[in-house]
Amino acid sequence: MPQVTVIAGGVGAAKFLRGLVELVDPSDVTAVVNVADDFRLHGLAISPDLDTVTYTLADQVNPETGWGRVGETWTVMEELDRYGGATWFSLGDRDLALHLYRTQRLSEGASLSEVTAEVVRSHGLDVCVLPVSDAPMATKLMVDGQHIDFQDYFVARRHDVAVSAVHFEGAATARPAPGVLEAISSADVVVVAPSNPIVSIGPVLAVPGVRDALAARRDSVVAVSPIVGGAALKGPAARLMVELGHPSSAVGVAGLYREVVGTLVIDLVDEDLAPDVVTAGPACAVADTIMSDPQRAATVARSTLAAVGLEV
Amino acid sequence: MPQVTVIAGGVGAAKFLRGLVELVDPSDVTAVVNVADDFRLHGLAISPDLDTVTYTLADQVNPETGWGRVGETWTVMEELDRYGGATWFSLGDRDLALHLYRTQRLSEGASLSEVTAEVVRSHGLDVCVLPVSDAPMATKLMVDGQHIDFQDYFVARRHDVAVSAVHFEGAATARPAPGVLEAISSADVVVVAPSNPIVSIGPVLAVPGVRDALAARRDSVVAVSPIVGGAALKGPAARLMVELGHPSSAVGVAGLYREVVGTLVIDLVDEDLAPDVVTAGPACAVADTIMSDPQRAATVARSTLAAVGLEV
Repeated sequence: MPQVTVIAGGVGAAKFLRGLVELVDPSDVTAVVNVADDFRLHGLAISPDLDTVTYTLADQVNPETGWGRVGETWTVMEELDRYGGATWFSLGDRDLALHLYRTQRLSEGASLSEVTAEVVRSHGLDVCVLPVSDAPMATKLMVDGQHIDFQDYFVARRHDVAVSAVHFEGAATARPAPGVLEAISSADVVVVAPSNPIVSIGPVLAVPGVRDALAARRDSVVAVSPIVGGAALKGPAARLMVELGHPSSAVGVAGLYREVVGTLVIDLVDEDLAPDVVTAGPACAVADTIMSDPQRAATVARSTLAAVGLEV
Repeated sequence: MPQVTVIAGGVGAAKFLRGLVELVDPSDVTAVVNVADDFRLHGLAISPDLDTVTYTLADQVNPETGWGRVGETWTVMEELDRYGGATWFSLGDRDLALHLYRTQRLSEGASLSEVTAEVVRSHGLDVCVLPVSDAPMATKLMVDGQHIDFQDYFVARRHDVAVSAVHFEGAATARPAPGVLEAISSADVVVVAPSNPIVSIGPVLAVPGVRDALAARRDSVVAVSPIVGGAALKGPAARLMVELGHPSSAVGVAGLYREVVGTLVIDLVDEDLAPDVVTAGPACAVADTIMSDPQRAATVARSTLAAVGLEV
């Protein structure tokens, strides 16, 4: 069976991974996940992208939101609201249990990789889920001349503000977590999932060694464009790309990934952009990229692997 | 209306306070509460005695345990157990909301006094609830030649181990929280609640200034013995007293409090110990001290105030 490593953000990557494991033995799949959205709230260590990937693979994700747990209850948040506590970041009761577990284990000296492996195993999963780094990283966005935290931007302000710059605090000195570089170099194919290129994939590429490891095997690295018809399926990717000087299109994605991605999969609706994608750098494949359920996501995964010659 | 300040631990003190506010205007009552049981778990700042006092005064306490909230749900703990997390300290869903709130506010720079006032106000209470200090303090118990944490002793080991020494880490450099010394010196009466003399009242007395403030007005300080018929109504007080060299009786309590308490209220069943109590130091009053419900607790509070000449 082929080994596949997926460079992952949150919801889009999670859906892709959920489709991929319909085709490939889960134990041959490694996800290298963004941690620059991670933050502390109420004293708890919260890792949104790692958890979205885990919950989605475990069929535990809330299908309406793409994050958090299905069938969730909100007893703690309702009571916290009565205290006047910070409820802008919704934490369901079952979701909170994971944050309590992670925070306690980190305080005992476990690494984020170790805790993530424990959590993934608790959910009965065979996929290897790796944080890109065990070091703390934090995406900061320049808004109105001030650096703000990612969750302030993304959740509290609903990404409805203009961003003039993005940087990843801690990335320059972060080391890849154990297994990350090996997973990139040894896989048969590396997929850059359809996540936000700026704030989800960007921080992964900013960890020293990751960009080089991808560039060294660029011909077998395939990305799925998260921009379809000029818009992001979810979140602020399109707006962020424009504000930071990139076309909000599959061509813009191709330009951002040109050094590390050999082939870009673009959606059927963007078929006429294929020549411009090729001009921007990568080879181009055209496919249905809409992942509205695991079966459709499996179809996207199949097309993606086929784009670099891997038939499953 | 008379002003009453109560030196408080957890369950016993909370019951006494709940009775007291049946007799005295709650806005004339101040509780000075032990914080040396406070600890961090799952990254959360937990203050068991402050919360037991607050929940009990708000009629929100679980009447079966004397701590935690009535009608509580356990969704987070059940899920945490599935992760193999630390569940030895039970935190109900509603109770957790308070710990999240406190942890977040402390991380924002609020003092424990400030957070406690906010929480007490959220519960609609007029009693002034003060942590004895805003500084971190930690009761450590010597067990098998090792210093262990209070919650490890009290909850995880169910206080079923021999203790050879107790000390209060941080107490010597802790400053009384704002209002503590004033509440002790300006009240008409100070009551030392029927809490564990060693590990609940002991840490309060260990905060510099508190012991002196009580000693300076000893004649109007009245304690209720937590030892009835040679046994503690709850918890390890009797065993701890013996292991640390004190008689496990009202007489032992009298000896421990002799410098700071002018009158000790002992239970009817201990009536024949009254002469020995007086020999040990304080004056002695005999009364029913069983607080099985708020009305009986009010009776105990009435007897306690009457013991130092205050009729309510």
